[in-house]
Amino acid sequence: MTVRLVGAGPGDPGLITARGLERIRACDVLVHDRLVSPELVAEAPEDALVIDRDPLDQARVNELLVAYGRKGLDVVRLKGGDPFVFGRGGEEALALVRAGMEVEVVPGVSSFAAVPSAAGIPVTHRGVASQATVVAGHDADSLDYATLAAARGTLVFFMALAQLPRIARRLVEHGADPATPAAVVAEGTLPGQQTAVAPLSQIGAAAAGLPSPALVVVGEVVSLAAELAAPLSLQEIA
Amino acid sequence: MTVRLVGAGPGDPGLITARGLERIRACDVLVHDRLVSPELVAEAPEDALVIDRDPLDQARVNELLVAYGRKGLDVVRLKGGDPFVFGRGGEEALALVRAGMEVEVVPGVSSFAAVPSAAGIPVTHRGVASQATVVAGHDADSLDYATLAAARGTLVFFMALAQLPRIARRLVEHGADPATPAAVVAEGTLPGQQTAVAPLSQIGAAAAGLPSPALVVVGEVVSLAAELAAPLSLQEIA
Repeated sequence: MTVRLVGAGPGDPGLITARGLERIRACDVLVHDRLVSPELVAEAPEDALVIDRDPLDQARVNELLVAYGRKGLDVVRLKGGDPFVFGRGGEEALALVRAGMEVEVVPGVSSFAAVPSAAGIPVTHRGVASQATVVAGHDADSLDYATLAAARGTLVFFMALAQLPRIARRLVEHGADPATPAAVVAEGTLPGQQTAVAPLSQIGAAAAGLPSPALVVVGEVVSLAAELAAPLSLQEIA
Repeated sequence: MTVRLVGAGPGDPGLITARGLERIRACDVLVHDRLVSPELVAEAPEDALVIDRDPLDQARVNELLVAYGRKGLDVVRLKGGDPFVFGRGGEEALALVRAGMEVEVVPGVSSFAAVPSAAGIPVTHRGVASQATVVAGHDADSLDYATLAAARGTLVFFMALAQLPRIARRLVEHGADPATPAAVVAEGTLPGQQTAVAPLSQIGAAAAGLPSPALVVVGEVVSLAAELAAPLSLQEIA
């Protein structure tokens, strides 16, 4: 009665882990996020039951995982990125554990560093950033702008595209340098990847019209993209 | 003339990406960190040149990558975790680009979330932590304790074991709650994984004697390990 929470990685199907791929190939039931690559979903055995979790609420997803796990089936819950970095993996793991199930977590490559990387931006870099903060940006009103503006190093916002002009403005109001380099990377690691780079004060306007999902990076490391973005070939390979 | 910077993941060899493994299996030259799993090094072709970078300084590593790349050989630089999360991947990428090489970056699963995960700790969790900060902790004097102590969510320190009592004390002096749950996870994702859990004010003493490499996690998410650590089976699988 093991249910496996597997991270699919940031988008490019080649970035799933070797073990994650093995688990998909051996499963009876695959419950997947909508944003997970179709190539990975297609790796499930032909007779596996494949369920898109998108139309289901979280409680129903938890119920399904428990129900199929109790039947003794090999259940893989395939999630974008890493299950424990804004993936609600903790909630699913708790629901499973409380239902008496064993849980295997197979971590994934989080978008946190991989998506900036695909745009030529290392989230840490000696002499430039020795710390990085990853923040859920879907609710601009909930953020602690004073501490974020004072934080050293790199800020990486998930789910922030819709509220980016507001987030950028409030960071500046709380003391962030308006000239801080910033980038938005949309559809990172996928063939349609697009990047906008601008000073923090202008990044909201520069990123207008970019599609979701998108990651926002704020910090001096963004300037490294000038040298690193072109020769990096990650985005051409998928 | 492409040199590939490949992330090996947090320790468990099954956590390399599918593409990373493919690149190792096809390389002519493999330059690897000492901490990378021997099972992954063994995946290089039998006739590949395998170089442990440990006795070499960074300038010499860069020179080697450029020299072998210029010969038209397929060069893989295999690094622990993710190349761009405290991996000095940015420095190597810049050196290669400035020497006219093309660079492919294959991201890896960073220890940042995967090592806490292996100990039952999700670095983010709805209602508990919606942000996480990753910090290089090898130089306790260089940290901005006031902002770190004020930061919401989870703090994850790399390379902090040796100076942990000092780091913990200074966080408390700067306003962090001494009762904040903290954990040290040594040899995370490997068969020898060990975890110490204690309040922040006592974590230095609790972790004394743990081996390196170790990751330090500070934040309310650590309490989730009480329910999640036992049923999680990741560490038994490697």
